[in-house]
Amino acid sequence: MNIADLQPMAQQLFDEVRRLSDDGVGVTRASYGAGESAAMDYLRGFAEQEGLEVSLDRAANMIFSLPGAGTAPGVWIGSHLDSVPQGGNYDGLAGVVAGLLCLVRQRRTGRPAAAPLRVIGFRGEESAWFGKAYMGSGALFGKLTPEDLELKQRSTRQTLAECMAAAGADVDAIRAQEALLDLNQVSAYLELHIEQGPVMVARELPLAVVSGIRGNIRHNQVVCTGEAGHSGVVPRWLRRDAMFAVADLIVRLDEHWRVLLERGTDLVVTTGVVATDPAEHSISRIPGRVSFSFEARSRSPDTLEAFYQLMKAECKAISRERQVGFEFDRRQLSEPAQMDPSLCAVLAGACRRRGITHDTIPSGAGHDASLFANAGVPAGMLFIRNQNGSHNPDEAMEMADFMLGVQVMDDAVEKLCASAAAGGPSIS
Amino acid sequence: MNIADLQPMAQQLFDEVRRLSDDGVGVTRASYGAGESAAMDYLRGFAEQEGLEVSLDRAANMIFSLPGAGTAPGVWIGSHLDSVPQGGNYDGLAGVVAGLLCLVRQRRTGRPAAAPLRVIGFRGEESAWFGKAYMGSGALFGKLTPEDLELKQRSTRQTLAECMAAAGADVDAIRAQEALLDLNQVSAYLELHIEQGPVMVARELPLAVVSGIRGNIRHNQVVCTGEAGHSGVVPRWLRRDAMFAVADLIVRLDEHWRVLLERGTDLVVTTGVVATDPAEHSISRIPGRVSFSFEARSRSPDTLEAFYQLMKAECKAISRERQVGFEFDRRQLSEPAQMDPSLCAVLAGACRRRGITHDTIPSGAGHDASLFANAGVPAGMLFIRNQNGSHNPDEAMEMADFMLGVQVMDDAVEKLCASAAAGGPSIS
Repeated sequence: MNIADLQPMAQQLFDEVRRLSDDGVGVTRASYGAGESAAMDYLRGFAEQEGLEVSLDRAANMIFSLPGAGTAPGVWIGSHLDSVPQGGNYDGLAGVVAGLLCLVRQRRTGRPAAAPLRVIGFRGEESAWFGKAYMGSGALFGKLTPEDLELKQRSTRQTLAECMAAAGADVDAIRAQEALLDLNQVSAYLELHIEQGPVMVARELPLAVVSGIRGNIRHNQVVCTGEAGHSGVVPRWLRRDAMFAVADLIVRLDEHWRVLLERGTDLVVTTGVVATDPAEHSISRIPGRVSFSFEARSRSPDTLEAFYQLMKAECKAISRERQVGFEFDRRQLSEPAQMDPSLCAVLAGACRRRGITHDTIPSGAGHDASLFANAGVPAGMLFIRNQNGSHNPDEAMEMADFMLGVQVMDDAVEKLCASAAAGGPSIS
Repeated sequence: MNIADLQPMAQQLFDEVRRLSDDGVGVTRASYGAGESAAMDYLRGFAEQEGLEVSLDRAANMIFSLPGAGTAPGVWIGSHLDSVPQGGNYDGLAGVVAGLLCLVRQRRTGRPAAAPLRVIGFRGEESAWFGKAYMGSGALFGKLTPEDLELKQRSTRQTLAECMAAAGADVDAIRAQEALLDLNQVSAYLELHIEQGPVMVARELPLAVVSGIRGNIRHNQVVCTGEAGHSGVVPRWLRRDAMFAVADLIVRLDEHWRVLLERGTDLVVTTGVVATDPAEHSISRIPGRVSFSFEARSRSPDTLEAFYQLMKAECKAISRERQVGFEFDRRQLSEPAQMDPSLCAVLAGACRRRGITHDTIPSGAGHDASLFANAGVPAGMLFIRNQNGSHNPDEAMEMADFMLGVQVMDDAVEKLCASAAAGGPSIS
């Protein structure tokens, strides 16, 4: 059998997990929550039926392997099992399914790779639930702080620590920021993921190798405080209008962004959540309080830091000019990451040998792979073309494109495991 | 007795109405709603005990007079009995109490004015409830349209027509835009009101005569539509960010406003309610939909219209530049009004004779008086200094200042009624 023969199995996995997390609009698999757990329970049953070994790591992520993989060094394939609220079915799940198909192929053909392949289904990658991304993978690298563990879930208001404990994670070890993953077992990390952007559809690329991943710097909530007042009676020179101040800030950031792009800087800037205070706003009232989120993304850590400082400087200037104040919640930083050039070459080589049109492109969105790369593990990513963007219920992916991706992953695993078995991460 | 002796009565009226509409934070007297009705029921009982005549007009506003006023021409004193949610006790109520004290003084001293004084307590002046101001007074002048009657109350979602009918108004006549007030009975309209702004406190003026009232032009809701998307993957040139577009609009309006002020134009501009769409916004999502309110106020109808057209032109420009759309709900216009110079002179003369520091200032806020002025009735307004602004629970007023205002109103009524009895609105 060829791995391409497993397309019906892939379809079944996608269909069943979609059914288990259907919310009537899209799919909802809350980080360290119900839909995510339902998906994991289903995949555990599937894997055990296929004769695979299943275990949980100390952050409650799920690890699949052939029986008897032990602690030998090998290749890891991973992605995440949570989704944004009312999200799409493939964002995250596609990468875990791809890994499982590689294991099933090895098991059914009786031709295991030269070194163990481990597939990891991460919990908690999406920032939509706790205002923080990479919780499941971050915990493994000791990157979750005690403050992170107190973040509250957007709907239930339970803390991350409570939700992680309920899922079976070792919260004490995570709070102590222990390293929970033995990196000696990881000779390389691979991740297959949908692109989440419009580039590959526009360029007619079914697959792409990822060169690097944008990091981001964020505030979930900044509050601008001025002074509320009757809209008819306070002249412009006496106003402390929080909304005019925030609009001023956004336009200044947009102008800086435009100029930086002209200089060739990699940057995107977003204020995704903005609102006057519903408790007191009205049409005839000068807004005294406006809250907003801030996010900048770039492949360069220097750009992130410089743009952040620029934002703070503009807030200071606006505070003076408009007699308002800005209060910032905790700054969240996800570092940019470079994919390993050798792994990129292996993935690109596999595409080439299979005659699949492809190119190398950067990732605008963040991925668990960035934590491996920044921990010094050689990491590589393969993008699958997807339609209608992501983080929305219309997100789509062609099964034919996906199976091409699975084929390339299988080929790459074969090659990288041989290299791992030969004792080196170097794969030329 | 002097009218100044009625200060304890004034205090009692304010205290009792406050108690009946206390919401735990401030006072809440919904337009054509519960708190407003409670205030009216209380005032009716009080007035009847004082031997005054009480009736409702066809818009369910309450009219007080000495017994036997009949239909003879005379002077009217009016203001409103509703409040914003969690508002202050004096905004509106002070004017009705002032009028009642004048009637009580006439009744108790047995010295009625030469022509009837009628006091009217309007319902529904505040726009906070239905997104529309002057509903009670507007109905009398046939100014409420069938569309206005379908506006929905912000919390109960009942229509204005339903609420007016429940209060006993003749909704069919109002819908037909009949004139419900016989202007032959109105030789002059006077209104006492708190200033609602900081000018009189700053200038240490207990009283001020109002020269004119700003009108306003509004949209309760404008919706800017762009395209939502993952914040990491859509480059600036492909973005259709609705929030950046709205921020751009606000900053352009602010800049036009600044320039117009430098040319001496009377104008204030406010976007009191702004929000990304709570159903879909998130920190890592480009906002696809932002709603906001628009309000401009000026004493000049030409300025209102010109600034409105400027706003529409900027929306068009931004639509082109940022690939977004703007959708406007119905435009609401409240016309500016000039107070009658003769009435201003009467009020200023009364202040002067009583030795009260005063000046003539414009009103930034709107008042029921503007509808009388724009219907050709000579109208005059007296402002009482007030602390802590208005439309908030901290709104305050000194009883001593208020009683000075009541004295001036009583003096002015005396003079104007004499003139009305002599057959003319002209009072030199």
